[in-house]
Amino acid sequence: MSAPKKVVLAYSGGLDTSIILKWLQTEYGCEVVTFTADLGQGEELEPAREKALMLGIKPENIHIVDVREEFVRDFVFPMFRANAVYEGLYLLGTSIARPLISQHLVRIAHETGADAVAHGATGKGNDQVRFELSAYALDPSIKVIAPWREWDLTSRTRLLEFAEANQIPISKDKRGEAPFSVDANLLHTSSEGKVLENPGDEAPDYVAQRIVAVEDAPDTPEFIEVGFERGDAVSINGEALSPATILARLNDYGARHGIGLLDFVENRFVGMKSRGVYETPGGTILLEAHRGIEQITLDSGAGHLKDSIMPRYAELIYNGFWFSPEREALQALIDKTQEHVTGMVKLKLYKGSVRTVARWSDHSLYSEAHVTFEDDAGAYDQKDAAGFIRLNALRLKLIATRNARVAGK
Amino acid sequence: MSAPKKVVLAYSGGLDTSIILKWLQTEYGCEVVTFTADLGQGEELEPAREKALMLGIKPENIHIVDVREEFVRDFVFPMFRANAVYEGLYLLGTSIARPLISQHLVRIAHETGADAVAHGATGKGNDQVRFELSAYALDPSIKVIAPWREWDLTSRTRLLEFAEANQIPISKDKRGEAPFSVDANLLHTSSEGKVLENPGDEAPDYVAQRIVAVEDAPDTPEFIEVGFERGDAVSINGEALSPATILARLNDYGARHGIGLLDFVENRFVGMKSRGVYETPGGTILLEAHRGIEQITLDSGAGHLKDSIMPRYAELIYNGFWFSPEREALQALIDKTQEHVTGMVKLKLYKGSVRTVARWSDHSLYSEAHVTFEDDAGAYDQKDAAGFIRLNALRLKLIATRNARVAGK
Amino acid sequence: MSAPKKVVLAYSGGLDTSIILKWLQTEYGCEVVTFTADLGQGEELEPAREKALMLGIKPENIHIVDVREEFVRDFVFPMFRANAVYEGLYLLGTSIARPLISQHLVRIAHETGADAVAHGATGKGNDQVRFELSAYALDPSIKVIAPWREWDLTSRTRLLEFAEANQIPISKDKRGEAPFSVDANLLHTSSEGKVLENPGDEAPDYVAQRIVAVEDAPDTPEFIEVGFERGDAVSINGEALSPATILARLNDYGARHGIGLLDFVENRFVGMKSRGVYETPGGTILLEAHRGIEQITLDSGAGHLKDSIMPRYAELIYNGFWFSPEREALQALIDKTQEHVTGMVKLKLYKGSVRTVARWSDHSLYSEAHVTFEDDAGAYDQKDAAGFIRLNALRLKLIATRNARVAGK
Amino acid sequence: MSAPKKVVLAYSGGLDTSIILKWLQTEYGCEVVTFTADLGQGEELEPAREKALMLGIKPENIHIVDVREEFVRDFVFPMFRANAVYEGLYLLGTSIARPLISQHLVRIAHETGADAVAHGATGKGNDQVRFELSAYALDPSIKVIAPWREWDLTSRTRLLEFAEANQIPISKDKRGEAPFSVDANLLHTSSEGKVLENPGDEAPDYVAQRIVAVEDAPDTPEFIEVGFERGDAVSINGEALSPATILARLNDYGARHGIGLLDFVENRFVGMKSRGVYETPGGTILLEAHRGIEQITLDSGAGHLKDSIMPRYAELIYNGFWFSPEREALQALIDKTQEHVTGMVKLKLYKGSVRTVARWSDHSLYSEAHVTFEDDAGAYDQKDAAGFIRLNALRLKLIATRNARVAGK
Repeated sequence: MSAPKKVVLAYSGGLDTSIILKWLQTEYGCEVVTFTADLGQGEELEPAREKALMLGIKPENIHIVDVREEFVRDFVFPMFRANAVYEGLYLLGTSIARPLISQHLVRIAHETGADAVAHGATGKGNDQVRFELSAYALDPSIKVIAPWREWDLTSRTRLLEFAEANQIPISKDKRGEAPFSVDANLLHTSSEGKVLENPGDEAPDYVAQRIVAVEDAPDTPEFIEVGFERGDAVSINGEALSPATILARLNDYGARHGIGLLDFVENRFVGMKSRGVYETPGGTILLEAHRGIEQITLDSGAGHLKDSIMPRYAELIYNGFWFSPEREALQALIDKTQEHVTGMVKLKLYKGSVRTVARWSDHSLYSEAHVTFEDDAGAYDQKDAAGFIRLNALRLKLIATRNARVAGK
Repeated sequence: MSAPKKVVLAYSGGLDTSIILKWLQTEYGCEVVTFTADLGQGEELEPAREKALMLGIKPENIHIVDVREEFVRDFVFPMFRANAVYEGLYLLGTSIARPLISQHLVRIAHETGADAVAHGATGKGNDQVRFELSAYALDPSIKVIAPWREWDLTSRTRLLEFAEANQIPISKDKRGEAPFSVDANLLHTSSEGKVLENPGDEAPDYVAQRIVAVEDAPDTPEFIEVGFERGDAVSINGEALSPATILARLNDYGARHGIGLLDFVENRFVGMKSRGVYETPGGTILLEAHRGIEQITLDSGAGHLKDSIMPRYAELIYNGFWFSPEREALQALIDKTQEHVTGMVKLKLYKGSVRTVARWSDHSLYSEAHVTFEDDAGAYDQKDAAGFIRLNALRLKLIATRNARVAGK
Repeated sequence: MSAPKKVVLAYSGGLDTSIILKWLQTEYGCEVVTFTADLGQGEELEPAREKALMLGIKPENIHIVDVREEFVRDFVFPMFRANAVYEGLYLLGTSIARPLISQHLVRIAHETGADAVAHGATGKGNDQVRFELSAYALDPSIKVIAPWREWDLTSRTRLLEFAEANQIPISKDKRGEAPFSVDANLLHTSSEGKVLENPGDEAPDYVAQRIVAVEDAPDTPEFIEVGFERGDAVSINGEALSPATILARLNDYGARHGIGLLDFVENRFVGMKSRGVYETPGGTILLEAHRGIEQITLDSGAGHLKDSIMPRYAELIYNGFWFSPEREALQALIDKTQEHVTGMVKLKLYKGSVRTVARWSDHSLYSEAHVTFEDDAGAYDQKDAAGFIRLNALRLKLIATRNARVAGK
Repeated sequence: MSAPKKVVLAYSGGLDTSIILKWLQTEYGCEVVTFTADLGQGEELEPAREKALMLGIKPENIHIVDVREEFVRDFVFPMFRANAVYEGLYLLGTSIARPLISQHLVRIAHETGADAVAHGATGKGNDQVRFELSAYALDPSIKVIAPWREWDLTSRTRLLEFAEANQIPISKDKRGEAPFSVDANLLHTSSEGKVLENPGDEAPDYVAQRIVAVEDAPDTPEFIEVGFERGDAVSINGEALSPATILARLNDYGARHGIGLLDFVENRFVGMKSRGVYETPGGTILLEAHRGIEQITLDSGAGHLKDSIMPRYAELIYNGFWFSPEREALQALIDKTQEHVTGMVKLKLYKGSVRTVARWSDHSLYSEAHVTFEDDAGAYDQKDAAGFIRLNALRLKLIATRNARVAGK
């Protein structure tokens, strides 16, 4: 790979990406363009602009974009249509944000004539894979620079020395090492590393930052109603809301009631296990609500099909293959099933748990006439069940007969 | 089908199966053998013996069996090795008990020379299918009698008239109709019908009978440690326990903390949707614990494979195909993956939720040496990730190049 | 079910459906509308009109429709996009025609105000299921009449007596029983029953009617080129052709070269095994050609996904669930993968076999630059493979280390 | 990776692996142990011994092993139980031999105290992955040396120079470059590269080396009977034979009749497409025969399950994951299904095609009593089909009703 001339960097404004910024300038002598996204991580972005300016980035090379609506509408919601859960429990909050960031990095590279993009993910994790697969899928000729895999700043001490040597301001709380590493966006906050590295030790209470401790959650339950159209949440308690607003509101509800905390050991794509603490307050409510509305609007044929391909879909997102033909083909399948996933779900929120308690829809497939224990006025002939069972049993009978014959009985 | 001569009836001692008992005697003039199982449903079984005697069953034709250990060891535990969940949420508590009952019905039929078995499931539900497929798979020549599909006692009034005409005692609370229908065993209690028939109405509080209301659960969390060997729970808080005892203890913990309540609309095998309220206190804890121990002991290859076939496995159990070649083949796959699923899980129980907070094992695949944010002493070469990503990206690049070429760019 | 007033019958003009026609008139006293489709079965349809008239059908109640293009375009081609094969070998030639017929029956019922449809499939086979599931899916209130399951004409003798009693002409060759049963359309000809009922006996030579015996096929191979666009065949040897014309031409090629004969024992949806002889000359070529073009235009991600869901897709078609949400969702997935399946395939036809010998496309993903054994000018860095392998091996190493540790080595 | 001290090399005796042998000695100054396997590739192995001696290998360091029975019994047959086919067509002849070779390399390393193994696969192909994943899975601390990824002998000229400089004899036909690259074992011969690199060009006739041209195959068909026990072939024409002998005989039959030639473009695990010509004469017959016996002995439930996981199983073998928990778990599933796959298949071999024409078994599930077009004496009640269909249709009716309601009809 020839040296890059102009690089678009995913820049948070924090110490680490500031070091990367400087390192790119010094190592490659290249022009740096910064991209800072408001993904709902809950931090001010203007300081990132000031810091970039201070580090010598030209004003026209600083790109700060509010991508919250896009994030929820084009990434989070499509994923939730699938009820995607990785390894039974993880709602993919970090995974789903990476392709969006890469998409903007590549877009800005094209707009600014940059030939490379750079990110601050380490060489041990999944995020490097997600950033880079997305970038290559969107522009096969783009260069991707992953400083953590390249440089020799392999200890905290050397990083701080580099920062000092390059006039990068270091806030006091960054002098010491953080007790764990954090990623946040509108969907979730993840914590991993350091104090969490032994999965046999309980996570300290201070790890959870976003969700109130269940013990401190309100002593009375709260009920909310979430409205859906074609698989996507569109309203809360009757108020129509934009995608990002809905997720933000659900986050408020979930955080207040202690909902969505997960302590989890997962299998990384790069082959090792890692332990994380995930806080997904709104997403946890959204998943339950989506399942609730599917219960009455989705047929078993489509539903079971979705369930059977979901693990693969989730794995693709986890592994960074959002921009791949197979994810897109699975999305076509999933979206096809959501045409009638429209209606209302009532949920009970209380002390860390969310439960569907009622659901109704004009698109409902539920037929009280068929299921009733009362007289069904001929909707269903119970005698049909006899034939249904006998034909389903036929092959089992033939097997039993064969097995007995072979066993010499 | 020629008339049965001797029938083994799944007999609870309740009004409905007592009516069936009498109806079999009068309709077919056949000898009736009763089978009453202690599945952990929490009812005395001796009254069933007395009632059967009173209805004219010979003492030697009355079979009362405690099947709790067998139920948990041979049915519940194998199923939980798969993390089986039907339609995302239902733990299959009723489904998994039916093949066991059929197995005993057929065994007793063989031992007593009976040519038929009978059950009290209606023609609209799944249980008829589960009972009958199991029976036919175990004895292809057995006759199965399903009185609810055959008789004309189609209203409560006619049933009571038949009971009175046949000197079947009717307890006062059975005069009126129950507000919903209940099934219970050591794994769960299900409620459906009547007041639950509109899934848009919240279930009345009195429906949940087994689990304390979350609002009434203790205000302080409780922590327990569950030990596993080869995928099965074997101890609680260090005390080795039999399968049924473990499940019973977990039920106590779960019930006290309000854990395991589900309000659910499901797709029945016979083609309609139905709504049920399920209480699975111990099973809900067990599922979480099993996932917890798998997190550190199961490799991603085996784990993702299991996840991908789980929906099909759960569907087979739900539909009544426990005794089928495909369930057995899937079980062989699942059991193969559990060889190292051995270790300890610590769980937090509180107000309706159960969460894994720590897990450890001699069989752990978790490698702190690899995952650490600290210096890993060469366990992992971050530069390997570059090649890993580039080869994973190669096909995506070729696609992007092709697509651009075709688009005439 | 109340008695039908007006019935649309799938009418071939043959003896059996003529008897059904008359039986419907006499049994139900209902008006009969006939639907006769040209599916490419290679029979004249005008005699069916004359016979219907003779049996008292009003001219305006006789519907004869050439559905060949529709059949291939809307049913056969979408199915071949999936490379659908049932149980490894069967190309679903009968299965795929049934939903089309039901669609027309229901359409004509709506246009003529009929309240029922009727078909001539027996109660043991798959076709009854396919006809009826399709009809119910298209009109949930339609009545379906299956005379073979209802009447008492259960022997050849009684059928002929009924025919004679009702002035239905019986051609001489129908006096005796056919040695096997045949179904034919543009995609295939199937033969089953009678002389074929023992799968341990070879099928007599006279069973194959459509394909020349391989021994009699030409002694010199023939080469053809099939062009594809978005997964569908669009040309042969450079000549653009309509869907039905393409399939007809491929049938000619295949039949001449002895291609597409299958002797097969399959699992019917109704639970029994049956043996059939299938002749699918053009379809066999089309499948090979489609695989050939996918080889260079389809990415492995999309390709392996398609392969993994194909068995389920084929099973759905075989079982009669063409008009189901799950088939439609799978179709959306499949169609999404076909966007670039465009190009040319060259095939060698010879003595019963068809083989792809070359394929090329503007949409090709094949990169000679990458794969070459020669110097690749930097397209691929072989050192990347080392990292790729090491990270893929990481979990296997961790497993081996764990297993050795546990084994006490 | 520290320098290896003693290396076990997969040594064919050919020019390339002789160069590797010498390069290992000179590059690393390490002791070399050779492993030469008789996999049925049809070459004399004693010349490899002489050449190794001549290149300075100690006699006790030369390991020549006949692994043919082991290869077929423990690798080929288990794989054929699954009907494994990669991307619809490829029988995995190269893929399945690699783990066996690695298993012996690691075994010999342990026996001789070697700390490394080496192979002659290039950095672009799948074989490097297969060799190395297998080696690491069997010994996580083993070093693997892949000279083609390391050295600078990147052109034919330099290779020959190195050979000459190191007194490695070069046979005349090796002076020029081979027109394509070949791998052979008892299961297949593969050819790729050079003249085959453009998939739009037909492969020259001289590429196929093992199978007679179909035009030259006998003009009269030959019939053989293959016997199976529990999924494995055990006899031909009534003669019990060992696994390797059976495959060798089937190879003779297939080669003579021109059976098993495949021109194929596949997706390599490393991300690129490649084109190969595969000759699998005996394997092609074996696959057809295995399918034939499964048709009558395998239930649809087990059969469809097998079909659905087969693509994943084949992909695992292709990608080199033979020694992985997920392949082993799938094998457990597959083997479970084969318990009754016992019986006889009669096949017709003719001019490139093989077809099952009859099959019979004591373990047959085929029931002529059920399937017959004649009177079945009550084995099957056709009226059962009505209930079967109505309950299968119920959800489709509910969907149609819902859709019509929503559409405002």
